Amino acid sequence: MSLLEKTISGISGQNEQARENARERLSKLTMPHWALGKLMDLSVDLAGITGSLAPAVKRKTVVVFAGDHGVTAEGVSLYPSEVTPQMVQNFLAGGAGVNAMAEVSGARVVVVDIGVDYDFDNANDLFVKKIARGTKNMATGPAMTRDEAVRSIEAGIEMALELADETDLFGTGDMGIGNTTPSSAIAAILSGKEPQEVTGRGTGIDDEMLRLKTEVIKKAIKINKPDPNDAIDTLARVGGFEIGGIAGLILGAASLKKPVVVDGIISTAGALVASRISPETVDCMIASHLGAEPGHAVMLEVLGKNALLDFNMRLGEGSGAALAMNIVESAERILTSVATFEEASVTEKDK
Amino acid sequence: MSLLEKTISGISGQNEQARENARERLSKLTMPHWALGKLMDLSVDLAGITGSLAPAVKRKTVVVFAGDHGVTAEGVSLYPSEVTPQMVQNFLAGGAGVNAMAEVSGARVVVVDIGVDYDFDNANDLFVKKIARGTKNMATGPAMTRDEAVRSIEAGIEMALELADETDLFGTGDMGIGNTTPSSAIAAILSGKEPQEVTGRGTGIDDEMLRLKTEVIKKAIKINKPDPNDAIDTLARVGGFEIGGIAGLILGAASLKKPVVVDGIISTAGALVASRISPETVDCMIASHLGAEPGHAVMLEVLGKNALLDFNMRLGEGSGAALAMNIVESAERILTSVATFEEASVTEKDK
Repeated sequence: MSLLEKTISGISGQNEQARENARERLSKLTMPHWALGKLMDLSVDLAGITGSLAPAVKRKTVVVFAGDHGVTAEGVSLYPSEVTPQMVQNFLAGGAGVNAMAEVSGARVVVVDIGVDYDFDNANDLFVKKIARGTKNMATGPAMTRDEAVRSIEAGIEMALELADETDLFGTGDMGIGNTTPSSAIAAILSGKEPQEVTGRGTGIDDEMLRLKTEVIKKAIKINKPDPNDAIDTLARVGGFEIGGIAGLILGAASLKKPVVVDGIISTAGALVASRISPETVDCMIASHLGAEPGHAVMLEVLGKNALLDFNMRLGEGSGAALAMNIVESAERILTSVATFEEASVTEKDK
Repeated sequence: MSLLEKTISGISGQNEQARENARERLSKLTMPHWALGKLMDLSVDLAGITGSLAPAVKRKTVVVFAGDHGVTAEGVSLYPSEVTPQMVQNFLAGGAGVNAMAEVSGARVVVVDIGVDYDFDNANDLFVKKIARGTKNMATGPAMTRDEAVRSIEAGIEMALELADETDLFGTGDMGIGNTTPSSAIAAILSGKEPQEVTGRGTGIDDEMLRLKTEVIKKAIKINKPDPNDAIDTLARVGGFEIGGIAGLILGAASLKKPVVVDGIISTAGALVASRISPETVDCMIASHLGAEPGHAVMLEVLGKNALLDFNMRLGEGSGAALAMNIVESAERILTSVATFEEASVTEKDK
C-alpha cells in the first residue's frame, strides 16, 4: 500500500461524541447561551477533530510549500520566477509577511522546497522534497506527470508526519510566482465554474493581463482535458507542486486528527484537491480568511467553509493561516479556561 | 480646569506625517502592494495614533467597568442583578470569557467597580471608583445626575492615567446586568434612530421581553427628554456608570495617544459618548468586532468604524476587545518585522 493509500485509509471525520460533549460543556459556561458565537462553533470543531475537550493547539507550525511554474512563460505574473527562491530566503531569514504573523501567534515557519528552480543551501527550517525544478507550462501540455502529482502529495504527507511530534496545529502556506494561475484553473475545474468567474489579479495585474491570464487558463483546460472527477489528474494537468504538497499536508494532518488552518486561494486549491481525494479531510480544515481572489470564495463555498477573517488579503505565504492561529487558540480556551455557572457560583438565568 | 476639560484639551487627531511615513514603508515591503489589506490600514492607524513607525502595542490591559442598573426593575433582562457582582468575582478569579480571550492575547484584565450594588473585598486587579450602588430606574426618572455622569467619565479617565505606565494598548469592557437597555437608548438618541431599530435580545430574551424592553426605552426617552446634542446629558438620563467609565477610558487613552480596542454594544455606546465629547477620540478607537445586537452596527456606522471581526458574539465583558488585540499586534508587526525589497534583496515587479 502506498503512503497516499495508507494515509487515506487512516482518515475519519470528526468525533461526534466529542462534539456533543463540547456543546454540553459550552452550554454551562458563565455566559448567555452561545454568546461567543462563531468562536464557539470553532471550539466544537476542535473537540470533534481532536476527540478531546482539551484540544491541543499550542504548538503551531506553518508549512510553506514553494515551487515554480512553467506557465510564467505566458506572462501571467508581474514578478519574475527568480522571486520564488528570493522569497524562500526571505522566509528563512524571518523577513516576510508570514514570519511577522507567525511571531504573534507563536508559530514556527518551515519551508518546503517541493519544486523551486534553484538549489538552496541547508537551513534549519528548510526541508527539501523537490519533485522537479518547476512545473512545465500548462498552456502547452500537462504541468506534471501523474506520478509527480502523487509524489507532491506524498511529500506533503511526509511533512505532516515528520512535524507531528512538535505540532498540534498546522497551517498551510505557499510560495510560487505564477501560482494563482494553476489555483484558478483547479478552482474552475473542480467547482464547475467558468475560468473568468474564478480568475483574479494575483499580485496586482491590470485588465489586459487579467484577460491574458484567463485565456491561458482556458487554453490549458482545453489542451489538457483534466478529468473533473479525478483531483490527482487535475493537479497533474494544470496544478503546481506546492498545491500538491498542501493537499498532502492536509491529508496527513487529517490522518493524525490534527487541525489545519488553511490560508488563501493557493492553499484552498490544495484543500479542494485533498477533499476530492478523501472527503472527510474537510472536517479537519479551518478556513483562515476570505481573500481578494474570486476563486477563493468559490472554493470555500464548494468546501462548505466560512472563513474566520475577511481582511481583503492576497499575500499567500501562509500569512492568513498564521494570523488566524491565535483565534483558534482562543476557541480552545473557551473549552478549557472558562468556568461553568456551578464552578463560579454564578446564578443561572431566570427562565 | 476639571479633569475632563483638561483631558479634552489634550486630545488631538492622528499624526498625518506618521500615517504618510507608514504608508511609504508599507509600500516597499516584500509583498505585492497592500497585500495584507485591512490589516495594513490598521498598521497606518497605529502609526497615526502613536506618532511612531514602531507603535507600542505589546503591553495590553482590558479595563472592565462594572455597574448595576435600576432599569432591571422593569424586567428587561433574563438574569438578576446579583449576577453583576458574581461575574466581577469570576473576572477576578480568571474564569470568565474575557479572561480566556486575554490569556491568548497576553492582556491583563482589570475590573473597575464604578457602580455595583455590592461591596467587594480588596483584590489585585480590582479598582474601586464607585459613583453609586447602581443607577436609578430610567423608566421613572433620570438614571443619574449630571454630576454623577461627569464623575463616571472622570473615573474612566483616571483609569487610563493610572494604567498608562504599564499599558500600550487599552481594551474596553463592561459588566452590568441590564446594560444593553441603556446602551440601546444611547444608540437611539445619539444616532437619531427609533428604539426598535437599535434594541436587541441582550442575553437572549424572547419576543415578548424584547417588545417590553423596547417600550421601556421609549418610555425612558419620553420621560427624561435627553438632549441628543449633549452626550453627557444623554448619559445621565438614560445611561449607566460603566458606559460613562468606558467613555472616560477612551478619552484618557486618546489624550495619551494610545490606541483603544473597543468591545461590543455597551463599549460602543461609551465610544459614541466619547466621540460627542471630543470628536477626535474616534481616531484612537479600533472596533474589535461586530456583535449580534442591532444597536452595535448602527453605532459603528455613526462612528465610521469597520469592525475587525464578525463572529456574532454578544458576551461583552471586553471579550471581543481581548480577542482582537492579537490582530492589532499583527498589524504592528507588519511595520516592524517585514523586510523591504531592498533589505531582503528581492527583485521588484516588472512594471
